[in-house]
Amino acid sequence: MISPGGAEVPLRHPDGLSRGSEMHRHAEERVLAQIDRGFEAYIDDIRAAIRQPSVSKTGEGLAEMAEWVAAYIRRLGGTARLVSGREAPIVEGDLRGPAAPTTLLFYDLYDVQPANPVEWQVPPFAAETVSDGAGGSRLVGRGAFNSKGPMVGFLAVLRAFRESDVPMPVNIRFLIEGEEEIGSPSLEPYIRANIDTLRRCDAAFIPYLGTNSRGQTPIRLGFKGLMMLEFSVEGGAWGGPAERNVHAMHTAWIGNPGWELLTALATLQTQGGRLAIDGLDDTMHEPDAEVRQLVAAAVDAIDPAVFLDEQGARRFKYDCDPRELLTRFLFDPTINVDGIWVGDTPLGTEPPTQMARRASAIVDIRLVPGMTVDETVRCLRRHLDRRGFEHVAFRVKSAYPAARCSPREPVVAALIDACRKHAEDVVVFPMHAGAAPMYLFSEVIGIPFAFGGLGHGLYPHAPGEFLSIESMRGFLRSMASFLFAFAGRSGC
Amino acid sequence: MISPGGAEVPLRHPDGLSRGSEMHRHAEERVLAQIDRGFEAYIDDIRAAIRQPSVSKTGEGLAEMAEWVAAYIRRLGGTARLVSGREAPIVEGDLRGPAAPTTLLFYDLYDVQPANPVEWQVPPFAAETVSDGAGGSRLVGRGAFNSKGPMVGFLAVLRAFRESDVPMPVNIRFLIEGEEEIGSPSLEPYIRANIDTLRRCDAAFIPYLGTNSRGQTPIRLGFKGLMMLEFSVEGGAWGGPAERNVHAMHTAWIGNPGWELLTALATLQTQGGRLAIDGLDDTMHEPDAEVRQLVAAAVDAIDPAVFLDEQGARRFKYDCDPRELLTRFLFDPTINVDGIWVGDTPLGTEPPTQMARRASAIVDIRLVPGMTVDETVRCLRRHLDRRGFEHVAFRVKSAYPAARCSPREPVVAALIDACRKHAEDVVVFPMHAGAAPMYLFSEVIGIPFAFGGLGHGLYPHAPGEFLSIESMRGFLRSMASFLFAFAGRSGC
Repeated sequence: MISPGGAEVPLRHPDGLSRGSEMHRHAEERVLAQIDRGFEAYIDDIRAAIRQPSVSKTGEGLAEMAEWVAAYIRRLGGTARLVSGREAPIVEGDLRGPAAPTTLLFYDLYDVQPANPVEWQVPPFAAETVSDGAGGSRLVGRGAFNSKGPMVGFLAVLRAFRESDVPMPVNIRFLIEGEEEIGSPSLEPYIRANIDTLRRCDAAFIPYLGTNSRGQTPIRLGFKGLMMLEFSVEGGAWGGPAERNVHAMHTAWIGNPGWELLTALATLQTQGGRLAIDGLDDTMHEPDAEVRQLVAAAVDAIDPAVFLDEQGARRFKYDCDPRELLTRFLFDPTINVDGIWVGDTPLGTEPPTQMARRASAIVDIRLVPGMTVDETVRCLRRHLDRRGFEHVAFRVKSAYPAARCSPREPVVAALIDACRKHAEDVVVFPMHAGAAPMYLFSEVIGIPFAFGGLGHGLYPHAPGEFLSIESMRGFLRSMASFLFAFAGRSGC
Repeated sequence: MISPGGAEVPLRHPDGLSRGSEMHRHAEERVLAQIDRGFEAYIDDIRAAIRQPSVSKTGEGLAEMAEWVAAYIRRLGGTARLVSGREAPIVEGDLRGPAAPTTLLFYDLYDVQPANPVEWQVPPFAAETVSDGAGGSRLVGRGAFNSKGPMVGFLAVLRAFRESDVPMPVNIRFLIEGEEEIGSPSLEPYIRANIDTLRRCDAAFIPYLGTNSRGQTPIRLGFKGLMMLEFSVEGGAWGGPAERNVHAMHTAWIGNPGWELLTALATLQTQGGRLAIDGLDDTMHEPDAEVRQLVAAAVDAIDPAVFLDEQGARRFKYDCDPRELLTRFLFDPTINVDGIWVGDTPLGTEPPTQMARRASAIVDIRLVPGMTVDETVRCLRRHLDRRGFEHVAFRVKSAYPAARCSPREPVVAALIDACRKHAEDVVVFPMHAGAAPMYLFSEVIGIPFAFGGLGHGLYPHAPGEFLSIESMRGFLRSMASFLFAFAGRSGC
């Protein structure tokens, strides 16, 4: 893109650095200094966002949170609009640099997973500060890590640009949804409806508190895909109690929906614990040489035992070497039961001794590169049918495939540069075990994406989710430097 | 026993009938006439009992119900006392015939299974009358069929003796517990503590509304045993999240308690749906010639499809002939999941996309003759361990073995006689698919027992449990005649 401006247009130097890069360097120092000055206020911005619950699985607070985000962008001097989604509005907006030729598509989410207060030691939406027992402080709350901490943290960096009177080195296009935790049902329609505008962006970016508890920071070059499925078995023509729950004795001669469900589900894993759906292996891409090399470098830098420790687990489920272990973590598809119900007795209540006429489960399947949603559904149906489980129904609640990006893309290289500027142990992981619908950027829009940042937090989706307050200085700095590095890497 | 009385002592006639049997015949007519006169009042007694909830799984109303039963016995002229149990008192008592040499141990339960009102079309504890759509009326409520209908119905027959001024032909010893639906934890201690008194009883009896929807009445010669088990898997030394629920992505390399539980449970059945615990088959008794003959006669009299229809099911789970089908129903051990929980999200709420650190299930296993509780526990533990499920724990919440009785026992023969006196299609089943701790009578006390009666009801443990009001005339009559027949058959 050619900037319409004059004096601000950076010229490329013969050594590959631009006159602009020097200007950027000076500007970057000013923004970094402002981040130090405004740090408490920026953390308070995150606190305020956590205190507004926005639970997409229940609908709580979504409209309020969308307004909060839009108002924040407007205070930055940007424009922001709410676009209706299935359950929650998408916040779209723009914040333009005065003469920036490059546009970054900033994607994030303002919704969070549910939080059951009885499982939390502090209220999940109070954003309280809790000692970490080692001299540091945690900001504890649902969304602290996933993803209000990094999302609002990134917005706060833009606030630091404004407060230090530094012009933005790139334009930002905002795309912040409130349905990520229910599978992003409105995101693809939104992207398809706005495809021309979005294709004018140079790259997409998603911030993340990527530093682990040992101070090491993986940058992940992709995401697994995610299918949310609802399985159910009800008595009917195939057998089982078709009209009501019946006395448990009748399982001696009448089909049992609960057993059918759990027996069918059990066939979907090997006893060793790997996903086992007939025909699915053929669709997956084998890790290539670059992936294997990145994995080897990653395990040299980070002992997988660190992850184990962070998750409060005593051992991995496989006895294999660290490279194989990390490869499985990053490149194995998975299946997990989020909830299963036989009858409707709540946990902690004695169920009647009966055969329930209905059993159901919510299951997530994570897809790796190569697997498509349609083929996975076909393989799953055929797998069940072949084993006599035609009566085990499943419904796809939401689904998207995996996505990858190259470390050679300017947006990715800029992120790695920026993180390495402010931290020592930055490691490139060829993939993230987590899922996000980034294929919409890489495949549908057709632009590269980057994901990551400094900063530490833990327990997404779980009780006690937190971010380390001190680590957020590194996060904010890495975000500021990333914007300058991306502007520079993009050849400006 | 030699009666202390004089003129009332019945003398045996040379033809095997006693002078007493003629007296009995006259007395029986008077009681039967009173049953007709007092019918509405007796049904109202049942209604009153249903309207007092007594849910042993929650504790609701147990003390009140125990008092109600004791007061009823006292109004009959008997004595009644409450004996503390683990969760609910046992009602023990006596009602003596003026010169009866024979004593019947009347066993029943005053507790009921829980009832979730949202599953019921009428409130479960309102004891409302509802049309059956075919000209009859149902008394609908939790316990109508299992077991307040027959329990209070039997007491009402004793009321009819009193109201018609007919002396009791037998003595009744009452043993009515309030913990049957939680596995009768206090029953065996009570029996062992009172074993001398109980051994003076000649036989035990448990009434039942045994007539099916086609007017056929099986008399069952035994009960399966029942083990209530709680299975659980928690993250720990074996693997899995040991401290908290974690993000679902970690199932790629950390053991998954939910999957471990359902995979382990799935190994406990064949895919065809029969219990499959290593080594257990060796402990079961093969049906003998008498059993096979009784099964053959039973299927000639009653098409198993009648049961299917009553349970609201469209087909059996086995494609086999009716004899084999009925044999499996009566003599197959079974396993059923009453409830299963992965994490703690209630049905109807979207669970977080996480790997839960704990999964659990309440499971009932029904034992057939030959299986012992101890050996079943041993086989189950070994079965799981052999398959690598050492970390799948189970706890026996309650357990008792199966029990059988012979059709040649006077108490059984008397019941068959009495039912045949008031109904045409009375069929002897060698076993009941349902469970009850009758081994305490046959093995621990060492007396025969009988179980059954006329009268129709359905849906024990399930929503809409009911008794057919009209059918209770047959039930009450069969109970009155049974008492006379038992007195006669016992040689009095």
